[in-house]
Amino acid sequence: MGQGEEALHDIFRNSFRGGKGLSGPGSDCARLKPPSGVATLQTVDQLIEGVHAELGTPWTTLARKLLRRTLSDLAAVGARPWAVSWTIAAPASASQSRLKRMAQAFLAEANAFGCAVVGGDLSQSPHLVLTCTATGLEGRRRAPGRSGARPGDWLLVTGRLGGAVQSGRHLRPEPRLTEGTRLNQTYRPRAMMDLSDGLATDLPRLLRASGVGAQIQLNDLPLHPEATKATGHERWQCALAEGEDYELLIALPARRARMALTDPVLLRTGLTQIGTVTEGNSLVWLDGQTPLRAKFKGWTYSWKS
Amino acid sequence: MGQGEEALHDIFRNSFRGGKGLSGPGSDCARLKPPSGVATLQTVDQLIEGVHAELGTPWTTLARKLLRRTLSDLAAVGARPWAVSWTIAAPASASQSRLKRMAQAFLAEANAFGCAVVGGDLSQSPHLVLTCTATGLEGRRRAPGRSGARPGDWLLVTGRLGGAVQSGRHLRPEPRLTEGTRLNQTYRPRAMMDLSDGLATDLPRLLRASGVGAQIQLNDLPLHPEATKATGHERWQCALAEGEDYELLIALPARRARMALTDPVLLRTGLTQIGTVTEGNSLVWLDGQTPLRAKFKGWTYSWKS
Repeated sequence: MGQGEEALHDIFRNSFRGGKGLSGPGSDCARLKPPSGVATLQTVDQLIEGVHAELGTPWTTLARKLLRRTLSDLAAVGARPWAVSWTIAAPASASQSRLKRMAQAFLAEANAFGCAVVGGDLSQSPHLVLTCTATGLEGRRRAPGRSGARPGDWLLVTGRLGGAVQSGRHLRPEPRLTEGTRLNQTYRPRAMMDLSDGLATDLPRLLRASGVGAQIQLNDLPLHPEATKATGHERWQCALAEGEDYELLIALPARRARMALTDPVLLRTGLTQIGTVTEGNSLVWLDGQTPLRAKFKGWTYSWKS
Repeated sequence: MGQGEEALHDIFRNSFRGGKGLSGPGSDCARLKPPSGVATLQTVDQLIEGVHAELGTPWTTLARKLLRRTLSDLAAVGARPWAVSWTIAAPASASQSRLKRMAQAFLAEANAFGCAVVGGDLSQSPHLVLTCTATGLEGRRRAPGRSGARPGDWLLVTGRLGGAVQSGRHLRPEPRLTEGTRLNQTYRPRAMMDLSDGLATDLPRLLRASGVGAQIQLNDLPLHPEATKATGHERWQCALAEGEDYELLIALPARRARMALTDPVLLRTGLTQIGTVTEGNSLVWLDGQTPLRAKFKGWTYSWKS
């Protein structure tokens, strides 16, 4: 038997602490039994060396980032992290100790977020590809999804946007779990999602799903200090198009939005109105009263047709 | 917005048929609400071009294989397929139509197995890496796992072993879902798992988890016709070490094993006793009465220490 593979499996078997309703590694499947009548929320994310993080980034950092960006999707639906599985495809040239350190970093990070690592798969590939499947427990209220935004709703974001790479935040994103739960349970958003590809890419997804348009007031964007170092339009480009913010974007009716804007739990992280939902399907970027003709383009992949 | 990415997401959104308790693509998370009190069983698997299938294999074939080998893990715990998510990391050089065909093949195959595709993630990477997370619903009886085999138990396998690559079966594995459910519910196995890396790698995993040894009668191995083309020890090497059989390995007390061996549902696929569980921790391969000194080595990865 290959020591490498079994030794790594052992790390997981030995460190597994079955939570309530969970049994994990060592079988062909993990068993997840949610409390009676409770829905689970599931998401899957990838982290590819050289694509989602620069080559040369420590693998321990990549493993933590993988977990955190996956949990950001649970935050977007107000779910509580419960169980994660992951896959590792690593080059044969990697040392076992490097893989072990990565596995231990992932485990420690999962524990810190209160979720059990219930399964995984290990393979070889020419370069490092990690994926993570996270399962959360639904809160008292069903998540809104992206399709419920209505004209007149206010658009808000948590935290600050832009400069994720320059500030190093992109390597250690902060899943807005507390905020997502608070927003969902207390203010009943019409729509909510997390910003991973930049507002300029993610907002149109929400608008499209809801069949609405929006006006965004660029001067109201809460800029991260790194983004404020840029000047003029460059600042906005930073805040809208770089991606990796992992903040929440929320559509709320005006009255509930005003209440949320004074909620001390949410103010700790920051909550800012950036615009409003409109009829139609156009997205207008405003500089004061002036509609901007510039197009912003967030992160997206394309393949030749 | 990159047409490529959104167009592919659209395939999933438009083809999604929410089953009972499921809502899927178009949100940050899929929502899975199992019937009250029913546990879910979850597994994740990878398929890497050039590792799990020869370079040049059609991507539609890879997508189907990915699904089928993941469902094989559900078969091993007697679960009914319910929902799957997957990830695609594909080279930028791939054409969109190639990706679309792959996605459609995956969807069609999932539908054929009665499971909804509830989510996924799309990214770019230097070469094709696919992963699949499958969630099944537990049957009336909890799955045995791998750790319950006891001395005196009979060891059985479904179907036939060996020659998976030569026969082309490795590209279209048959998850033993009917058999897994039948075995689990009717015969209460002490341990059960699926054979993906070859009996010589997988059996030791079961023995180790159960803290037992085994004697395997090589002449009793149910050989696939492709494996019978080899001669002498080569046949056994074929059946034990090549992997990709995706048959079930079961440990059953003798009396229940005898009953299972006459079950018409199981006989359709074939069920064969190949050995018995023993005290201790040694695995003995027998050629008639003669213990073989040869070591068989199934598929496993190793990394340098």
